[in-house]
Amino acid sequence: MTFLKSPSSIEQKSFEIIRKELGQRSWTEAETRIITRMIHTTADFTFADITEISPGAIEAAVTALRSGCHIVTDTNMAKAGVNRNMLERFGIGVSCFIDLPEVEETARSLGITRAMVAMRAASDDPRNRIFAVGNAPTALFELISLHEQQMINPAVVIGVPVGFVGATEAKEALRHTSIPYIITRGRKGGSNVAAAVVNALLHLASNGEVEPQV
Amino acid sequence: MTFLKSPSSIEQKSFEIIRKELGQRSWTEAETRIITRMIHTTADFTFADITEISPGAIEAAVTALRSGCHIVTDTNMAKAGVNRNMLERFGIGVSCFIDLPEVEETARSLGITRAMVAMRAASDDPRNRIFAVGNAPTALFELISLHEQQMINPAVVIGVPVGFVGATEAKEALRHTSIPYIITRGRKGGSNVAAAVVNALLHLASNGEVEPQV
Repeated sequence: MTFLKSPSSIEQKSFEIIRKELGQRSWTEAETRIITRMIHTTADFTFADITEISPGAIEAAVTALRSGCHIVTDTNMAKAGVNRNMLERFGIGVSCFIDLPEVEETARSLGITRAMVAMRAASDDPRNRIFAVGNAPTALFELISLHEQQMINPAVVIGVPVGFVGATEAKEALRHTSIPYIITRGRKGGSNVAAAVVNALLHLASNGEVEPQV
Repeated sequence: MTFLKSPSSIEQKSFEIIRKELGQRSWTEAETRIITRMIHTTADFTFADITEISPGAIEAAVTALRSGCHIVTDTNMAKAGVNRNMLERFGIGVSCFIDLPEVEETARSLGITRAMVAMRAASDDPRNRIFAVGNAPTALFELISLHEQQMINPAVVIGVPVGFVGATEAKEALRHTSIPYIITRGRKGGSNVAAAVVNALLHLASNGEVEPQV
């Protein structure tokens, strides 16, 4: 069988196709890099229409990444999707607290989601300044609440939970805070989308050069 | 803020909404469980139209899972998305070989994707009988080639790579083999979708009962 086997060629050609099919958009180059990466990971062009980036959010994220902030995800899937080479280059960590025994125990005793308790756990370390939520609307509501209580100081919240119960509402709630955000309006999103946004930000923090990802 | 915080209520309500919006379909209950879970993880109803399940594929997968076969994924993201409680219940493992140093070395020296080499590595253990490919079309082409060489004996191949270069073609190629398959035609799919299909199969193997997932 004849097919492209070189990882860098595959990625380069993919982004060419996406940009061509998107046509002209009124986005900055940085916004384009984030949104094309979301489309790259889903093959779903509706992300071009539902993604909303608050003014200054990208710059805040890039600045925080360059100064070594840490990243928190709501799921292990999102964590697994973050580009390790980029993390190593910046010397930063990505954490997901959902599987900690104490998180599970607290969630069970309170009858709330582990994702909520995991966000509270993340608030213990002030280096945690980029939060990526791809799955649990409850995690996003909890981040908003922690921010109101001044328990977290996010550079950006990537609010892209997917789903039918609470996802749309949680993202709308985030829009009405002072937290810099990158969101997808409506039901769509996902752990893969959250990871894609983190990776796009890491690429942007790395002088804006987009390098092939295998 | 008032919102649903109980994980089981959230999941149950989500599946109710999905089934309602899907309306009547000519699917078996097992097919419905797989496709609704794909929609649950993406909020994308086009999966109802692009998913194709070969005759007997679900039964083959369920039988293999009940007899303790192992699962292989092409990405760590898909692996991270597989329900651990279910795996423990069946005493089965899920592996992703993409980060093995020898895989990376071989891929680099041959100028091919790590995903391809990772599938070759998976062929070493005959217990590996469920393959879930959510990202790399090259992994799917490699599985087809390994099957032609009688180096693997898959119970099912979950062929849902996402993308713009090779994904559609790899899935079409799989349809023309004798391998039992679950695929998404066209560009869409993803590591999250691959994990969702694996989880649906695990639920079906567990006597068909669908239990809440946090």
